[in-house]
Amino acid sequence: MADVSLPLSGRMNEFQLINRLKSLLPINDSVVVGAGDDCAVLAPPTAGQQQLFKTDAVVEGVHFTAETPGEKVGRKALARAVSDMAAMAGTPTSAVITLGLPAGFSPERVEAMYRGMAQFASQVGIALVGGETTRSPGALFLNVALLGTVPTGRAVLRSGAKVGDAVFVTGELGGSIEGHHLDFEPRLTEARWLAEHFDIHAMIDLSDGLAGDLQHILQASQVPGGEILAPALPIRHAARLRARSGDMAKPAVVAALTDGEDFELVLTVAPADAVRLLDGWKARFPETRLTCVGRLNNRPGLFLRDERGLKPLGHGFQHFD
Amino acid sequence: MADVSLPLSGRMNEFQLINRLKSLLPINDSVVVGAGDDCAVLAPPTAGQQQLFKTDAVVEGVHFTAETPGEKVGRKALARAVSDMAAMAGTPTSAVITLGLPAGFSPERVEAMYRGMAQFASQVGIALVGGETTRSPGALFLNVALLGTVPTGRAVLRSGAKVGDAVFVTGELGGSIEGHHLDFEPRLTEARWLAEHFDIHAMIDLSDGLAGDLQHILQASQVPGGEILAPALPIRHAARLRARSGDMAKPAVVAALTDGEDFELVLTVAPADAVRLLDGWKARFPETRLTCVGRLNNRPGLFLRDERGLKPLGHGFQHFD
Repeated sequence: MADVSLPLSGRMNEFQLINRLKSLLPINDSVVVGAGDDCAVLAPPTAGQQQLFKTDAVVEGVHFTAETPGEKVGRKALARAVSDMAAMAGTPTSAVITLGLPAGFSPERVEAMYRGMAQFASQVGIALVGGETTRSPGALFLNVALLGTVPTGRAVLRSGAKVGDAVFVTGELGGSIEGHHLDFEPRLTEARWLAEHFDIHAMIDLSDGLAGDLQHILQASQVPGGEILAPALPIRHAARLRARSGDMAKPAVVAALTDGEDFELVLTVAPADAVRLLDGWKARFPETRLTCVGRLNNRPGLFLRDERGLKPLGHGFQHFD
Repeated sequence: MADVSLPLSGRMNEFQLINRLKSLLPINDSVVVGAGDDCAVLAPPTAGQQQLFKTDAVVEGVHFTAETPGEKVGRKALARAVSDMAAMAGTPTSAVITLGLPAGFSPERVEAMYRGMAQFASQVGIALVGGETTRSPGALFLNVALLGTVPTGRAVLRSGAKVGDAVFVTGELGGSIEGHHLDFEPRLTEARWLAEHFDIHAMIDLSDGLAGDLQHILQASQVPGGEILAPALPIRHAARLRARSGDMAKPAVVAALTDGEDFELVLTVAPADAVRLLDGWKARFPETRLTCVGRLNNRPGLFLRDERGLKPLGHGFQHFD
């Protein structure tokens, strides 16, 4: 419940809007009491499960624009958090939403955002069990907190990578801003399959770009360095097109390494598992690429190898993690 | 992990700030993997417990100002969500934080907010297991998602009130803006004691004011109406002082009914339990008031009774819930 009255610009009053939004929220078997009380009440995970807990926000002007359709905004807000849960090889179960609304917001747009969230939630089996709304004097923001499960001890962390590991990425990289950042499918099924069938040492989802996010694995795993092979990078068509758009355009390889919001998985395995992994993947997910893009090693720092030799990566990626 | 680079105004770089913030975060026995991976990993609740799940945000210019000390902002953000969990008679266990930061934010202020959250979290036994940071083109916001437990089937809902119930409130009401909204102690211990020793029919925490929040109980419980006794209202000293501040000031009774952010509990019990409840409370919580302020009945609508008769309440309280 919000402690502030919201100025409604449209024909709906606040109670009508709230009731419409509530009617959109999907539930599942874990829900004892859903949206509408002080807190949601949920059944605990079944025996042999641990819990996963994650929060994430999208902000107008940063993660979407005033022109982005509301449905896609809502979908993206939820899908981003789901992608983080995929990176642990987990299963999302329920979410609560906080919406920060500027004066003069459109109730129709808010409803569209909820529709986008609800549709994606239904698709992946997530119950939406609470929605909080507040005024925001600045930009519209939408925060998603997500709860999920993972078999006890089977969460794939960032910290298990080893020197010598082969580095794989799912899908294709770069140019996400052309549309992928709104339409991506978090790699939930793929991640669980990977964790069930292989000894995945470390995994992370790509939100800051491969060059930055692989550094998080190195750091968490205390592995000194690694090498990415430029010709091996699976580059998204949109990144290639953008690279040809003018002299100032980012080269496609750089886009694949540094563009944000790919929401693909990066994972490392023992080199002895690499061939079996590629074969198994091709049989199970024939439509989706899985590419070995490099290897971890003892030489300090992350490097890119191309036809001209080795270049150091990993400077200028001072992101919050 | 955030997908945007944050412009730091101070001397610290982002990694230094993040490392300082991480070192502040309290943990507890439920934490398997805390802040720093894609998700937190948590032990499930012990047998016989259900889960509570809640989200809430504070926004600069709405819930606090640029002058509010950072520690108090952080404390308030967490304490608000804890108050909602108290209203279910639950126990909070872990929280994840989203921080939206405008350009030119002060890292020292961010650290102070985290200190305030961390100190309050330690005080009530909450682990802080994840922090996400994003840019916010508008106002600074701080979202808290909170997870907790409650013995199975023992969550006190808004929906159990009955015609004839006596209505009680803890503490005092009104004038919270003078300071209480930053310093309040959520009624966690009191709520659990109430639920353990009495058949509490319905409970809610006061964020919009008694007149508005009691309506939520009526609506959820499908009870037609109720009557609040004006002379019985426990009015906070700050509300009385404000009432004397000029001709335009809100009368103290109106402040007690409509000022937001009291974060006290409203609860209803069968009238036969009222005396035992008051006696038990006085013995257990001698420093804190518990006041019977009215009764639920069959007459549609919520009314205030004072020396001049009955006045209808409950118009003009069109808040989101």
